[in-house]
Amino acid sequence: MREPRQYSARVITRMSELFVRTLRQDPADAEVPSHRWLVRAGYIRRAAPGIYSWLPLGYRVLRNVERIVREEMNAIGAQEVHFPALLPKEPYEASGRWTEYGEAVFRLRDRKGAEYLLGPTHEEMFTLLVKDMYSSYKDLPLSLYQIQTKYRDEARPRAGLLRGREFVMKDSYSFDIDDEGLAKSYATHRDAYIKIFNRLGFEYVIVHAMSGAMGGSASEEFLAIAENGEDTFVRSPGGYAANVEAVRITPPAPLPYDDAPRAHVEDTPDTPTIETLVNLANARLPRPDRPWQAADTLKNVVLMITEVDGSRHPLVIGVPGDRELDLRRLAAQLEPAEPEPFSDEDFAARPELVKGYLGPVRFDSSGERAAAVLGEESITKIRYLVDPRVVSGTRWVTGANEPGRHVFDLTCGRDFTPDGIIEAAEIREGDPAPDGSGPLTLARGIEMGHIFQLGRKYAEALGLKVLDQNGKLVTVTMGSYGVGISRAVAAVAEGTCDDKGLCWPPELAPFDVHVLAAGKDDLVTTAAADLSVRLDEAGVSVLLDDRTVSPGVKFADSEIMGMPTIVVVGRGLSDGVIEVRDRRSGEQIEVAVEDALGAILAAVHGPTRLG
Amino acid sequence: MREPRQYSARVITRMSELFVRTLRQDPADAEVPSHRWLVRAGYIRRAAPGIYSWLPLGYRVLRNVERIVREEMNAIGAQEVHFPALLPKEPYEASGRWTEYGEAVFRLRDRKGAEYLLGPTHEEMFTLLVKDMYSSYKDLPLSLYQIQTKYRDEARPRAGLLRGREFVMKDSYSFDIDDEGLAKSYATHRDAYIKIFNRLGFEYVIVHAMSGAMGGSASEEFLAIAENGEDTFVRSPGGYAANVEAVRITPPAPLPYDDAPRAHVEDTPDTPTIETLVNLANARLPRPDRPWQAADTLKNVVLMITEVDGSRHPLVIGVPGDRELDLRRLAAQLEPAEPEPFSDEDFAARPELVKGYLGPVRFDSSGERAAAVLGEESITKIRYLVDPRVVSGTRWVTGANEPGRHVFDLTCGRDFTPDGIIEAAEIREGDPAPDGSGPLTLARGIEMGHIFQLGRKYAEALGLKVLDQNGKLVTVTMGSYGVGISRAVAAVAEGTCDDKGLCWPPELAPFDVHVLAAGKDDLVTTAAADLSVRLDEAGVSVLLDDRTVSPGVKFADSEIMGMPTIVVVGRGLSDGVIEVRDRRSGEQIEVAVEDALGAILAAVHGPTRLG
Repeated sequence: MREPRQYSARVITRMSELFVRTLRQDPADAEVPSHRWLVRAGYIRRAAPGIYSWLPLGYRVLRNVERIVREEMNAIGAQEVHFPALLPKEPYEASGRWTEYGEAVFRLRDRKGAEYLLGPTHEEMFTLLVKDMYSSYKDLPLSLYQIQTKYRDEARPRAGLLRGREFVMKDSYSFDIDDEGLAKSYATHRDAYIKIFNRLGFEYVIVHAMSGAMGGSASEEFLAIAENGEDTFVRSPGGYAANVEAVRITPPAPLPYDDAPRAHVEDTPDTPTIETLVNLANARLPRPDRPWQAADTLKNVVLMITEVDGSRHPLVIGVPGDRELDLRRLAAQLEPAEPEPFSDEDFAARPELVKGYLGPVRFDSSGERAAAVLGEESITKIRYLVDPRVVSGTRWVTGANEPGRHVFDLTCGRDFTPDGIIEAAEIREGDPAPDGSGPLTLARGIEMGHIFQLGRKYAEALGLKVLDQNGKLVTVTMGSYGVGISRAVAAVAEGTCDDKGLCWPPELAPFDVHVLAAGKDDLVTTAAADLSVRLDEAGVSVLLDDRTVSPGVKFADSEIMGMPTIVVVGRGLSDGVIEVRDRRSGEQIEVAVEDALGAILAAVHGPTRLG
Repeated sequence: MREPRQYSARVITRMSELFVRTLRQDPADAEVPSHRWLVRAGYIRRAAPGIYSWLPLGYRVLRNVERIVREEMNAIGAQEVHFPALLPKEPYEASGRWTEYGEAVFRLRDRKGAEYLLGPTHEEMFTLLVKDMYSSYKDLPLSLYQIQTKYRDEARPRAGLLRGREFVMKDSYSFDIDDEGLAKSYATHRDAYIKIFNRLGFEYVIVHAMSGAMGGSASEEFLAIAENGEDTFVRSPGGYAANVEAVRITPPAPLPYDDAPRAHVEDTPDTPTIETLVNLANARLPRPDRPWQAADTLKNVVLMITEVDGSRHPLVIGVPGDRELDLRRLAAQLEPAEPEPFSDEDFAARPELVKGYLGPVRFDSSGERAAAVLGEESITKIRYLVDPRVVSGTRWVTGANEPGRHVFDLTCGRDFTPDGIIEAAEIREGDPAPDGSGPLTLARGIEMGHIFQLGRKYAEALGLKVLDQNGKLVTVTMGSYGVGISRAVAAVAEGTCDDKGLCWPPELAPFDVHVLAAGKDDLVTTAAADLSVRLDEAGVSVLLDDRTVSPGVKFADSEIMGMPTIVVVGRGLSDGVIEVRDRRSGEQIEVAVEDALGAILAAVHGPTRLG
């Protein structure tokens, strides 16, 4: 079921009248190509940081994305509703998110002092609406969606529409009586998303994802593959794909340690870094079997964590010394709490933490284990989490909690016991896929869609229960499915533009064909206008460049603006031919005027355009 | 040029799956029928005061209104843009409206402390966008529009969608080089509005209007005629029509006063009201020619005015004693300043204002004029405005500024000179139309659209100038044109509902036909489903009631929900007939099953539906 295109231009749009101006210069604040070209081509204008106005061409693309999403949502029987953007505090207080959101949400008071927020997502509203209307298992399954303007007070809005503070999203929710129903609804949405992203016409990948602050279980993201994307994902030759934040490495098996050597503290002067430590160890304390490596060391990184209630406390994370802590992976694990590096002031306030020589255990002067230094049960009471590779029986070189001294053969499970594990070490090109499907490669992407099994979190918090077949009240289980509509405009632009400008896939282009009247004489302008009318009558949307500017300016503008097919009516006309160009490939053919309509229709509807 | 309907339901919508519940009870907060029925029929739900969620049926109506407005705007060559709802302070500060709006606007700060508002209207944004893009008379005329969610922090949100705090509007602006161009753009928009309101399918009237806080000259409103409307308008048999706030009465001609009797102060004990004063005058001081009437007295009303900067000062308004002050007419004249009644505390603070006996002049004990009491040049310095009927030479009975005393034959222009005139006296049924077209009748309406010649106010404030044909910079002149999209849903409901429920005009109805399977046997359900599919294939949108509830419940729901044509497949089926009902007229016909499709198509497309 397709919605008819919303812009069946029955009136030819003329460049002489279209509200657009292309710019010859890049805008100063444009960080990425999509932003640069969308501004230069006259599609959007910045109104405030992370907040944009849509010009006619841009708005047509946005509405095309909306149309595709709406058609595919309707096709799976999802029903469209529309919530306010200005939302009362109460439901968000009931779910705990009024506090959890912290500074990321815009808040305001009305003239009577009542508190509101500008909706960043609408889980609470969907849940309460279904609770208001439905009461029986017979009412389920149900899928509702909306296409809505959303708000997030991003700390660092960037990249134009890619990370804005006011943006358009499609969000849908499924409501089922049990997990089996949820799995079905999830699969149905997943299929619809594949159709949506195929129609958007650019390269994407489906990856395992974190469910983040939302709670829930199965979770996948649709990422546009893009160098400038904010997300990093991994793939293996065997088909594993995951957002790097969601990668869960396969931990090694625990090792026996009965025969392991005793831990021994060594003088390691001037070894504040892993590299200096490994060099010193190889020089002064060589291993018999092989040289010491960074992976033999255990690096303990101190962070300051801010909880949503504003309280702060330190946290130490131990990772093998050959890997950096990946701050985004870490932040994803800790959400909604926020980690920051431990500052010099923080260290000064905790003199028991010996910077550069921190480790889980302190030793006395005779080298005997004196006390645990890291962990909730230790003398510092600081929570201590380690990388999954730090399993029982593994032996480490790590800080001895004295300047210039490290301990060797410190054995996990024997000499120290972490409070838990955390997936916060970097994932590297060539690391094995967790499912054994081969070495991972890394790439960057833009999150375009996210589907996940939200479960009962909101239904429980807000009391959404229905009677089951036995007359018993059961909590409904929900799925959550989002598509970034305005972000899609930028992501598609980012994935399809070239060094000349925008280059739209057919379903998103503001117009199918850009007809250039490339010449001043009446024959040219008349022929171009006639052809435009005939194309329009044949159901093709046309932008006619009828301006009095030079052909060169028209060529350049048509390349910047990016309609899929460019038709040049110009010098060739005296020889009875016009030129049809494919914006993407740059291919151009000359066709006889009398064959022009057919040739253009073939180009618009041709196989290369349906791919 | 029509946009295709957005809901060409290729999948039959079934009541058993539709996200809707009708209510048997009126919602507690529903003040007007449209609100009551929209909630009871499952079209909308309240989310917060003046803020609503749209359920699937309601959202379809809203989108139908949007479609009609978009089609008619596109047809006149207006181009669609889209501004943010979250707007930075700066442009509104430049125009002065950041302050002028007072409490009526939602304001907020972002995490960095920068100030924003939720856009109530977008004049500044349109003006700045055109300034950014255009620079020459050759670029004009231009008309831009958007369909946008707007915000106003109403002191008293009421009547559901009729006066909400979050609402959808179409606003457009025209940009012209000169007044002649503006007049043309205005006329074009006016024609488009007539088409829009004709298609919306309900009774409306075009009236002269105030331009309000916006400034500007020619100004007309499109009002839905509705008992529960907030606006009062007047009409004459000769075709005059105006919002009551915009009525400008024809003042009488000035009279000579050379032969007028001297003003004389009289004892008028216990005459605090006009009625007591007229009675006393007729009893003790009879006129030779006719009895004294209330219209012979001049009533001076003191008000406290709050300016937008928060400063307060008194104002006195003189109106003939037979007319009340109309507070809405008054407020419209004073906008954005706000009038309030003068309180007892206010009187106590100004003892020179003798409550009940206030007049423009004070007299000494010998009855000689001693001083002006009202007016900027008077001893009180209080601004004094009078009704336009108070022209030079008119003689009045009014307060003598002493308890129990009035002055007679106080002559305007001789004994007192007001600071100006103000149109704030009530307009009454039977008053003459200002253009001489007969006596006025009063009625109430809902403002659905407003078009006006905004002029150069914003272009001047924000520096929107273009080069004219002589290379000279000239300020652009603008027109402003609004349609309340979400309000239209309520206004049409209000104007078309009856005592059974909603009753949609064809272009707005969520579905063309509501098919009821009124019976439980398979023959009935199969026949109803088959008919629905055939109607759908014939391009008619169908809602099929396939629930297992009783026919009575289905009938009642179909009347509440208000699709234009109701088809009952039920008991008659065994005799080979089904029933086709017109929701509005209640007419019903039985047709043979084999003729059903044709009969329903005739009902849907028939002349009664195109009226």
